[in-house]
Amino acid sequence: MINIAVDAMGGDYAPGEIIKGAVQAAGMRDDIRIILVGQEETVREELKKYTFRDGQITVQNAAEVIATEEPPVNAIRKKKDSSLVVGMNMVKKGEADAIVSAGSSGAILVGGQVIVGRIRGVERPPLAPLIPTEKGVSLLIDCGANVDARPSHLVQFARMGSIYMEHVVGIKNPRVAIVNIGAEEEKGNALVKETFPLLKECPGINFIGSIEAREIPHGGADVIVCEAFVGNVILKLYEGVGATLLSMVKGGLMTSLRSKIGALLVKPALKETLKSFDASKYGGAPLLGLNGLVVKTHGNSKATEVCNSIIQCVTFKEQGINEKIRESLGREKSEEGKE
Amino acid sequence: MINIAVDAMGGDYAPGEIIKGAVQAAGMRDDIRIILVGQEETVREELKKYTFRDGQITVQNAAEVIATEEPPVNAIRKKKDSSLVVGMNMVKKGEADAIVSAGSSGAILVGGQVIVGRIRGVERPPLAPLIPTEKGVSLLIDCGANVDARPSHLVQFARMGSIYMEHVVGIKNPRVAIVNIGAEEEKGNALVKETFPLLKECPGINFIGSIEAREIPHGGADVIVCEAFVGNVILKLYEGVGATLLSMVKGGLMTSLRSKIGALLVKPALKETLKSFDASKYGGAPLLGLNGLVVKTHGNSKATEVCNSIIQCVTFKEQGINEKIRESLGREKSEEGKE
Repeated sequence: MINIAVDAMGGDYAPGEIIKGAVQAAGMRDDIRIILVGQEETVREELKKYTFRDGQITVQNAAEVIATEEPPVNAIRKKKDSSLVVGMNMVKKGEADAIVSAGSSGAILVGGQVIVGRIRGVERPPLAPLIPTEKGVSLLIDCGANVDARPSHLVQFARMGSIYMEHVVGIKNPRVAIVNIGAEEEKGNALVKETFPLLKECPGINFIGSIEAREIPHGGADVIVCEAFVGNVILKLYEGVGATLLSMVKGGLMTSLRSKIGALLVKPALKETLKSFDASKYGGAPLLGLNGLVVKTHGNSKATEVCNSIIQCVTFKEQGINEKIRESLGREKSEEGKE
Repeated sequence: MINIAVDAMGGDYAPGEIIKGAVQAAGMRDDIRIILVGQEETVREELKKYTFRDGQITVQNAAEVIATEEPPVNAIRKKKDSSLVVGMNMVKKGEADAIVSAGSSGAILVGGQVIVGRIRGVERPPLAPLIPTEKGVSLLIDCGANVDARPSHLVQFARMGSIYMEHVVGIKNPRVAIVNIGAEEEKGNALVKETFPLLKECPGINFIGSIEAREIPHGGADVIVCEAFVGNVILKLYEGVGATLLSMVKGGLMTSLRSKIGALLVKPALKETLKSFDASKYGGAPLLGLNGLVVKTHGNSKATEVCNSIIQCVTFKEQGINEKIRESLGREKSEEGKE
């Protein structure tokens, strides 16, 4: 049985869509138990709308809610009875294997480190969302947790990202690349130049060199390594350019009668195409390298993304990702003779 | 009379498209003289295809060509008789007001600094392309010249970018923003945190704060300030996501008979829409802060972009951009009591 805590109060569509997604996930697997963490009365009221197997969904009361705009460190420290802090403490105590939250990104990152805690040997836990590409999906690691990272952090990101892509997403021997401003080895800023040779020598990963941002949407690598500032820019620009282009295309189709008729005809095919460029079907972004699993889903997550994030936790647990990370980073330490 | 040197040998479609673009520009303005720099015989042969006003286009022989893959510093130092070096020397000596090249980016950046030279007071000359947005166009500064920049460089980028947007692109009191991973002032990496208060206090610019990458395609600011590594990622991802999405949309439209018929109907409207998301109509990217003007156009530039880049040089010169930069950065120095 895998136990998954779900922050019922976090996100733009909480608690409605969060609970709906949790019920969907419960319906898909017999071997999971979902603990909805939040204001008990509200959550129970919402749960009444659905039917589910007895005992498969339980409610854990938490009186407080962390708002998106609250300073994260303060929120985690002071709101001991918030849904996020209560849920994370359940992961810490082993009462839950994972927690899924669509709440404040900052609070999730801080709480993951402070409450759930890092795996021994992990220097900085990265946030690693899957992003859609022409060929499928790539892992962007780190995209928001550790600005001004050091080379050794990036090497760990490459290792953890490889394990995740191979065992959760199912890509054999995933290609690892570092984001750079040119394909040649001598290109880059100080961080990339220092990291590049370390990645080249790093055992157990399939390092293919630099990747220019242009190649990311084409699926040029499976694990895209970068420090968090750059990763965040990539993630958000991905969304921004996509949204802008599509809204312009839609607007363009409405300019004449001819194009309006054409739009009706192309709509189903277009919808199908764009669905394949939508990452929400893969669920949320895991915060890797913690003693447990923390998954951050988009603030505007609807039921499907919440459901997929829960299923993602199951694969993560079944595949023993944290054991593999412990083993890989432990091995690294031994090789360096530090342990 | 404004004299513009054009590197006839640089770029994927040189010399054909370059020369075609130069002839187009010459046809549009009486007050410019274009000097085509390159292998004289080849250039003259190509020029025979066109008619133009006597003396408006001349040829300056340069026997060598710098290839894209050559190490830039070496190329600039050793190939004294290359089209790029000869053209840049003309700018240096005042025989030309500007040079346009679609050749090696690295060589253009190095040559700009080493041969043409910086305006006194300019610490690092940034490369500043215009990028398309939903609302028009924004200036991305710096996008490739100075990785690992310091806060003082970014402040100069903001000043120079504002002058350019106001007087070349014609946007009154342009909104300046710094690329960041959140909208709040306390967010960011070390560079952004240090730069933010300096921009807030910087006179003569309309600083509106941080901009998240997501807001760039929506036209959230007119001058987008960032260090070169981040700027390069933004520029290339812009191109990459756009190209991928459009090829997916095109592919999607070919999946059924119904959508194929629809595609025929929407094609003209779609083409019109996407044209407005194409930055090539604005010309190339200026390298700002030099004693003269160096404009880098895309390696795959066709005649239209070359022509627009030449016209851009005219506006730059007419508006006295370099004089304004000198005045602005000189004033900064006096204010700091350093002069």
